Amino acid sequence: MDLHALTPKTEIQRRIDKIHRTMTDAGMPAMLVTSNANIYYTTGRVINGYVYIPVGADPIYFVRRPVGIDSPDVIYIHKPEQIIELLAERGFELPEAMGFEMGSLDVMSYQRLTNAFHSIKPLNASSVLRTARSVKTDFELDMLRRSGIKHERVYRRIPHLYEDGMSDIELQIEIERVSRLEGCLGQFRIAGESMELFMSNILAGDNADAPTPYDFAMGGAGLDPSIPVGANGTVIKPGMTVMVDSNGNFTGYMTDMTRVFSLGEIDDIARKAHQCSIDICRVLEKEGKPGTPASHLYELAMSIVADRGLGHYFMGHTQKAGFIGHGVGIEINELPVIAPRSRDVLATGNVIALEPKFVIPHAGAVGVENTYIVTDHGLECITGAPEEIISLN
Amino acid sequence: MDLHALTPKTEIQRRIDKIHRTMTDAGMPAMLVTSNANIYYTTGRVINGYVYIPVGADPIYFVRRPVGIDSPDVIYIHKPEQIIELLAERGFELPEAMGFEMGSLDVMSYQRLTNAFHSIKPLNASSVLRTARSVKTDFELDMLRRSGIKHERVYRRIPHLYEDGMSDIELQIEIERVSRLEGCLGQFRIAGESMELFMSNILAGDNADAPTPYDFAMGGAGLDPSIPVGANGTVIKPGMTVMVDSNGNFTGYMTDMTRVFSLGEIDDIARKAHQCSIDICRVLEKEGKPGTPASHLYELAMSIVADRGLGHYFMGHTQKAGFIGHGVGIEINELPVIAPRSRDVLATGNVIALEPKFVIPHAGAVGVENTYIVTDHGLECITGAPEEIISLN
Repeated sequence: MDLHALTPKTEIQRRIDKIHRTMTDAGMPAMLVTSNANIYYTTGRVINGYVYIPVGADPIYFVRRPVGIDSPDVIYIHKPEQIIELLAERGFELPEAMGFEMGSLDVMSYQRLTNAFHSIKPLNASSVLRTARSVKTDFELDMLRRSGIKHERVYRRIPHLYEDGMSDIELQIEIERVSRLEGCLGQFRIAGESMELFMSNILAGDNADAPTPYDFAMGGAGLDPSIPVGANGTVIKPGMTVMVDSNGNFTGYMTDMTRVFSLGEIDDIARKAHQCSIDICRVLEKEGKPGTPASHLYELAMSIVADRGLGHYFMGHTQKAGFIGHGVGIEINELPVIAPRSRDVLATGNVIALEPKFVIPHAGAVGVENTYIVTDHGLECITGAPEEIISLN
Repeated sequence: MDLHALTPKTEIQRRIDKIHRTMTDAGMPAMLVTSNANIYYTTGRVINGYVYIPVGADPIYFVRRPVGIDSPDVIYIHKPEQIIELLAERGFELPEAMGFEMGSLDVMSYQRLTNAFHSIKPLNASSVLRTARSVKTDFELDMLRRSGIKHERVYRRIPHLYEDGMSDIELQIEIERVSRLEGCLGQFRIAGESMELFMSNILAGDNADAPTPYDFAMGGAGLDPSIPVGANGTVIKPGMTVMVDSNGNFTGYMTDMTRVFSLGEIDDIARKAHQCSIDICRVLEKEGKPGTPASHLYELAMSIVADRGLGHYFMGHTQKAGFIGHGVGIEINELPVIAPRSRDVLATGNVIALEPKFVIPHAGAVGVENTYIVTDHGLECITGAPEEIISLN
């Protein structure tokens, strides 16, 4: 087996160069990558092991599993305690300080690693990696565009999946089936151990107003208290909106998209709020350029919402979310964060999902979500399904 | 909203009593529960927050989200730094030492918590909680039995889902659809951030021999290097076995079951190995009693395999797994672990999945997996679908 699987070595080199620059800025002479998301980013595949990245040299891949990878960069190990000795054998001088993924690594694993590297000062590599990953390479943008195309294809099939009398969860099951038949991998990554979510979140009627413990834009009571998010078995009835928010992971890189469907006539205020969401997207698409503070996009959205008197419903009703957008890529919650106190500033190659949404009592959730590439001329939308509310009848 | 949702308060009390006893044995005067799995266990729902458990008193639930839980045990907070002061206000004396979930808590969150509780000695609560959870209450056993009944119903439908020319992933999509229509929640929990898996793992033909980075019993190359496990698009052909290993999470508590299907005539050695797996289950069902060392079950299985000359294929071929079973419940990988160096000893109320499996080159994976409750009289099987290899034609 090749080390880098489907990702060319030149692409891996480009990512490592970017990490090297971010490490240099942060004064970090070396790091040890441990999370699956960052191992995939720095390897192009998932290994059980560690990627050692020293500034100014190529990474070394310390692998426990799978067996059978042929590469001079790979050293098979049984335990992390072997790493120091193996680096010395290869002529590497040990760094004075080393970055660990403190944002994802569990305490026991961390203590074991820092014991093994006891003379080395531990630094936090999580934000260095998040920053490096927030600016996508052309290869990654291509992966994202390909996900967007397939994701759009799924949305176009949704109206044909509805049958009279269906519940939210029954519709969700058919959507996820079609999505996987189109090539969706059926799993995706979220940063943070406590975040749990389905491939798609379907909110029909007042279930959209059920608060969730998770830090997502919208809630839903879920089917069971063990995973309280999303569809709760609501039978779709006339006057309800059905919001379909789904993660389009077709390539290892996912787009995030939301569209709204409806049955029968829906409340006028729901239509107005939906149009407001579309209008916010149009304005932010022009304003979102390299150099724009993420907080500015948030404030702009809030001012449009306030102008239209819809603040009461914006980003939830009983419980409100504190952001209107987020980076996407290998994980669903990457940088930059589009929130009032975000210090992130948009850069060319960022990929962000914008989701200005509303919860209207008795109708349900409305609003769209699109995934965008930040370009020098504004935001390029890569989730092109029609945005108007589509009737399920 | 009630704090405990569908779980009666008496049941929560029973679990807390068990945790109190395990804490006392471990010399731990208090703990702070942070992972979703253990929050669900100690609350009966998922909250974004912290469950503070002092020995000899009721827990206090510090909640950030969701809004709207009415209970005298709930205190809403914005940040964990408020906890100490709020405990003092309630008249709680601060403990000298406190347990944290070091096996799952990320380093940054841990450092923040231990800074907030800076005068308190941190202890590791992970194994205390794993031990307490490994012995199920009657309520939990009922949840598991209910999952087993629905799980079995899904397996009985599988032969009817196959259509000529299907690939492994196409069959998987139909199985997961039927499973969710039967009430499967579509998500499940795995301990350990680096473990990633689909609701079901379908291995057809030689894909069963593709090594995976994950610590599962069987592998599979997967559809994409970003999540290299399971079905890889293999078209099911005569002579192949199709192993269906799925997680039956219908109630928040899951059963784990594997059955094998086949197309056309399969190799004689595959049939023999499959029978060997069934025979191992029959022997272990009798031998597995309270007091039996988990390692003894492993050795017994190995000796049966060796007697039949099948060691070369047991628990993988190109890459081998080092265990034949594991506890199940809220997570798919609980205690006890059925492995050669396991120090676990079976106890009444343990729930274990046994999966003595084989990979036969050119045929594929064979063997069964059942979930069992450890009773005084041996193992009670709660995954009752027929065990023989079932033809898809």
